[in-house]
Amino acid sequence: MASNIAVWLDGVPGSSLPLPDRGLDFGDGLFETLLLENGRALFRQAHLERLRLGLGALALPDCSSIAEQYLDLVCADIVSRGWPWAALRITVTRGAGERGYAAPAQVTPRIIITVSPLQHDCRQMPQPAALVLADLRLSSEPFLAGVKHLNRLEQVIAATQARQAQADESVLLDHSGQVVSVAAGNLFLVVGGELLTPPLAVCPIHGTRRRLVIEQLAPALGLDIREARVDLEVFFSCDEVFFTNSLQGLRPVKALGSASWETYPVCQALFEEYIREINSCAG
Amino acid sequence: MASNIAVWLDGVPGSSLPLPDRGLDFGDGLFETLLLENGRALFRQAHLERLRLGLGALALPDCSSIAEQYLDLVCADIVSRGWPWAALRITVTRGAGERGYAAPAQVTPRIIITVSPLQHDCRQMPQPAALVLADLRLSSEPFLAGVKHLNRLEQVIAATQARQAQADESVLLDHSGQVVSVAAGNLFLVVGGELLTPPLAVCPIHGTRRRLVIEQLAPALGLDIREARVDLEVFFSCDEVFFTNSLQGLRPVKALGSASWETYPVCQALFEEYIREINSCAG
Repeated sequence: MASNIAVWLDGVPGSSLPLPDRGLDFGDGLFETLLLENGRALFRQAHLERLRLGLGALALPDCSSIAEQYLDLVCADIVSRGWPWAALRITVTRGAGERGYAAPAQVTPRIIITVSPLQHDCRQMPQPAALVLADLRLSSEPFLAGVKHLNRLEQVIAATQARQAQADESVLLDHSGQVVSVAAGNLFLVVGGELLTPPLAVCPIHGTRRRLVIEQLAPALGLDIREARVDLEVFFSCDEVFFTNSLQGLRPVKALGSASWETYPVCQALFEEYIREINSCAG
Repeated sequence: MASNIAVWLDGVPGSSLPLPDRGLDFGDGLFETLLLENGRALFRQAHLERLRLGLGALALPDCSSIAEQYLDLVCADIVSRGWPWAALRITVTRGAGERGYAAPAQVTPRIIITVSPLQHDCRQMPQPAALVLADLRLSSEPFLAGVKHLNRLEQVIAATQARQAQADESVLLDHSGQVVSVAAGNLFLVVGGELLTPPLAVCPIHGTRRRLVIEQLAPALGLDIREARVDLEVFFSCDEVFFTNSLQGLRPVKALGSASWETYPVCQALFEEYIREINSCAG
């Protein structure tokens, strides 16, 4: 298991984390997942920008430029391995620390990069996904909302439920019944020709591809897009649904419970625009 | 930093965690913190029982008897080191796994034990604590309530706020304004001769010492004890406050904001009863 994963610790190839580490102890850290095409990190700046914001939110030292150096070093290595597609994860932890929850005054963050090859061609739109409704309701933590931190048990529980139901993803609601996201991605609905997406304030993660859809892909196609509260009634009656994340880009949804969708014209058009962005983006 | 911490991985002395590990990646795991007196783990069965419940809650394989074997092995080592008091942490993670949130079908948990010596005599009641009110409101996650899992960023933020304010602990409220706990412990209030404690359903952790107070220490003294919703008004006007955790036992509170308490007769009496329990408990 996990044999095909390459690991770097603070820029040095390795396969283990010195203990103690607050990332393990408390989930005290952050991560980013980047898609690599032939060793090129796609939408690199968007990820590094979110990482910087997250470091600020957790009051961690800004080690984003060091992380960027390590990222470049690892990407060069991946080029030499000849992996056409790969998932690269950057994890930043608050490093070692004495016992106890409180963050130490002096922190030396650790930066772990892991890379795993992907078998599918990420320039093809993924197969439409079957969703389940997660039993768990996502809790809201305004202090941590949108930050891609290491406390991900809610996503683990929701994704495991989907896997056990032989579905591809889970739809998460918050305690008020509002639709917030899938376990690993942001949601978009097509309603009467308009794109709706749950507001940033309720999203557990501020997706880089969510931002891309809103700021570039939808405008390029002249699509109206709006943040809106989405409940299950809206979800079940919408014309089309898709979700976004860094590895899959945009993925259409074919079913949730008794609701199903058979054509995905908006998602397809946006996916083509996404490929144009990949071709044109400098990194 | 952290130089005086001894580490065992799956029962073998070591100082690093093989990567990838879902404990680091997602906080996908559990922990227990035990107090050791001359290498004897106090209230060992209560901790192992909670660990077993947590493993069930996270659908992890029941490795509690293996954890118990490792615990005994480590305790024997601590005896030989001659540390009179030590904090022992057992961390269980879901181990390695392919990329992605969903738990793998086949899981081999990892069991990490770390021990750090404590400098103070844990048979003395700790000095009264100064508290601050945490800015953060604790989110409620019924699926995870009470489970001592590795997603502890809320506690990290609250405890860091206390340290920065030169206080000893933080009082956490939930989103409804109800008092739930301190960052690392359960709360008890003395109101008109009766002991009140927030109900188990709202507590982020089901404390072993909380249970001990309710089931043994308070009854031994003939004290009435009751789970009750506690708001700040009740808190500020109560006769006495203390909190409990595995390392400090019971610790009185001397101040929160403008409120202060100068005598701690109930906490002192319960602490004496706690010491009697330590003397009599088989482990």
